Amino acid sequence: MMYTTQMNAAKNRIVTKEMIAVATKENIAVEVLLEKIACGEIIIPANKMHHSLDPQGIGTGLKTKINVNLGVSKDCQDYTVEMKKAQLAIDYNCAAIMDLSNTGKTNTFREALIASSPTMIGTVPIYDAIGYLGKDLKEIDARDFLEVIEAHAKAGVDFMTIHAGLNKRMVELIKREKRLTNIVSRGGSLIFAWMEMTGKENPFYEYYDEVLEIFAHYDVTMSLGDALRPGSIDDSTDGMQIGELIELGNLTKRAWEKDVQVMVEGPGHMAMDEIAANIKLQKRLCHNAPFYVLGPIVTDIAPGYDHITSAIGGAIAAMHGADFLCYVTPAEHLRLPDIDDVKEGIVASKIAAHAADIAKGIPGARDIDHLMSDARRQVDFEKMFTYAIDPHKAKTYYDSRTVSEEHTCTMCGNMCAMRTTNKILEGKDISFREDKTNA
Amino acid sequence: MMYTTQMNAAKNRIVTKEMIAVATKENIAVEVLLEKIACGEIIIPANKMHHSLDPQGIGTGLKTKINVNLGVSKDCQDYTVEMKKAQLAIDYNCAAIMDLSNTGKTNTFREALIASSPTMIGTVPIYDAIGYLGKDLKEIDARDFLEVIEAHAKAGVDFMTIHAGLNKRMVELIKREKRLTNIVSRGGSLIFAWMEMTGKENPFYEYYDEVLEIFAHYDVTMSLGDALRPGSIDDSTDGMQIGELIELGNLTKRAWEKDVQVMVEGPGHMAMDEIAANIKLQKRLCHNAPFYVLGPIVTDIAPGYDHITSAIGGAIAAMHGADFLCYVTPAEHLRLPDIDDVKEGIVASKIAAHAADIAKGIPGARDIDHLMSDARRQVDFEKMFTYAIDPHKAKTYYDSRTVSEEHTCTMCGNMCAMRTTNKILEGKDISFREDKTNA
Repeated sequence: MMYTTQMNAAKNRIVTKEMIAVATKENIAVEVLLEKIACGEIIIPANKMHHSLDPQGIGTGLKTKINVNLGVSKDCQDYTVEMKKAQLAIDYNCAAIMDLSNTGKTNTFREALIASSPTMIGTVPIYDAIGYLGKDLKEIDARDFLEVIEAHAKAGVDFMTIHAGLNKRMVELIKREKRLTNIVSRGGSLIFAWMEMTGKENPFYEYYDEVLEIFAHYDVTMSLGDALRPGSIDDSTDGMQIGELIELGNLTKRAWEKDVQVMVEGPGHMAMDEIAANIKLQKRLCHNAPFYVLGPIVTDIAPGYDHITSAIGGAIAAMHGADFLCYVTPAEHLRLPDIDDVKEGIVASKIAAHAADIAKGIPGARDIDHLMSDARRQVDFEKMFTYAIDPHKAKTYYDSRTVSEEHTCTMCGNMCAMRTTNKILEGKDISFREDKTNA
Repeated sequence: MMYTTQMNAAKNRIVTKEMIAVATKENIAVEVLLEKIACGEIIIPANKMHHSLDPQGIGTGLKTKINVNLGVSKDCQDYTVEMKKAQLAIDYNCAAIMDLSNTGKTNTFREALIASSPTMIGTVPIYDAIGYLGKDLKEIDARDFLEVIEAHAKAGVDFMTIHAGLNKRMVELIKREKRLTNIVSRGGSLIFAWMEMTGKENPFYEYYDEVLEIFAHYDVTMSLGDALRPGSIDDSTDGMQIGELIELGNLTKRAWEKDVQVMVEGPGHMAMDEIAANIKLQKRLCHNAPFYVLGPIVTDIAPGYDHITSAIGGAIAAMHGADFLCYVTPAEHLRLPDIDDVKEGIVASKIAAHAADIAKGIPGARDIDHLMSDARRQVDFEKMFTYAIDPHKAKTYYDSRTVSEEHTCTMCGNMCAMRTTNKILEGKDISFREDKTNA
């Protein structure tokens, strides 16, 4: 190979097979894509060891992508269910799966997942550190963390969340600024705990260059974690969140100097009126690196429905330029999601991404809406199901009640506006007497 | 009584008991409310014959309200289920219920609904005309329609949708402009059919003054129907939609001259990037009359999930100034909703309204979010359920899996970020070895 990473190739004007695949999928010129990869505005997370990968691009001008979180936790350790979630994500053409397993030795599952998945895979190595190393948090040495990262990289993980922005400067802010919900990032809380218990600097910050070397070697994409993301609408856009974003902007530049691809993670919980400004701020402070948002959830009071609160926030974020949406399921804040939750989360997130692609004018995004609405005008339900984001649910709903007349549904029956208007525009009369029409 | 309608009272600086009730609920000065009712920016739909009504205000500066549609159709005529839906709407504190029954003689149901409902009731008289009059559409005389309106008014209906904007000028536009999904308003399609079959002017337009007289007598609020609302994202903000809006602006002024309260109905299907402009346009063209949006649905391709597509659109619309959201259920475009669909629709719509109230700075809107997030920081699940928009679902989700440690959930287990951060901030160490903490 004549290059290390996709970014390195782009800087050297080498067109990779991954770039060709992405350019074809997105229907854009490969030269345009190459320019944007070279300057960091687009990434193709594609670990050289992930042989089953069907590469996807994330960034400016491309379709909004979505990520599906899964993985076992201490009280839910059924790997079979987690693998089913992965299959669902693949079936729904999600761009990414993050394995967030945070208990025990998760290597076997992760390796099986990578081997079978055409979808890019992300991890958060610190979740796995305690289990992987067999050490308690406090006993882990800074260099131990690098060992975990190297193991994930070697296994073929395409992107990793690294909370390198939570350095001592930020810890000072945490103690000075105060906020309602402190740290709600799992990785961020572990690093904060480690720093406080050991008195040392954030190991991912201190050894950032070493992390970058590993990333560059395998072409792992850096996903800069937002350890200080707001966990309530009270905390959004505060000094801690924005302070960390400034750090992430600097870390973005340092990664690019080593040709490591980067995306930046973002909020979180946030009132709707702050979202546009946050996207502008991230794009400016992080030099147009792709923005990966976790929500944002636009009100705190809807546990059980956070797929909806985040669909609202995610759609607005993506319309204003966020590139990558992390799905949220109805189980958020309550339990590890089951397979139905995962499906609900995927669909809600796909709706948000697609609605945003329409709003931001991604070429071709409206085509399927046009086909759907054309089928609606024809009152052709079978055709509508074909274009539905979830054909099975649409058909099940329709079929659940019996209609007395073809080309109607039980909502309006023979008073269907489409049917009435079609008949009149065809020059026919319409009658509702004894439910017979003059058609 | 010294006044005819709430608007008439406001213009004469008479404070009604309904104004006092609304001012108290919204925590605003009654003088401010009175001013805004007088100029049409706020309405209190309160038919003098609706004796069980607990009045609500809709308009500038007030909390965003939601409406629940229900009613029987030809293929689903179970009044017991429809009454259960009404009870659900009341239990969830929805501001309004529209009875859209469109088949047979619906008087008994409507009267029972009004008698038992503290929630304002709306109807669309033309849906009921064929059944009420026992005539086929074509045979109905313009004055017959007034008879139906009078019957609804006398029964205590608080607001009625009147599609008076679809006049002959608009029919010319329909034929000239063309669009993908023509007329998707049920009432609009019936009027269009009637006009085309009889060759006459829209009866609600031609006899608008007579309609206003009835409305003024009972204090029925005029809900100006958008017969030409877009039924696909292809059709939004087109000549027909905006042309009709200009008519509705004129009809608004004519109603105000007779002291009839008015709101204006709006889209429909619409890409996210058009919503803000549409609100601005409606407010300008309709002289700041309250805006009642039906969605908007931000993509056409999600049948089965249109509670989500409309939660996205509704939240954005309300953030930009829409005052009243018509809920949409997962059954939209597919079937008459069942009770579960209604619940899903109500919750999604409440989320949209609440998120918008936070974003537009309605005083006090954030208070409950603060309480929820405070409970989250304390990892106090029982307290969280209290503040949840749907406590039952939240608790059911949480209880569905067993946690091995108190104050955690199965998502993160003992790696809960809140728990870790709390311990460290309290100056304690944290350990994950053998799952024991040093607390």
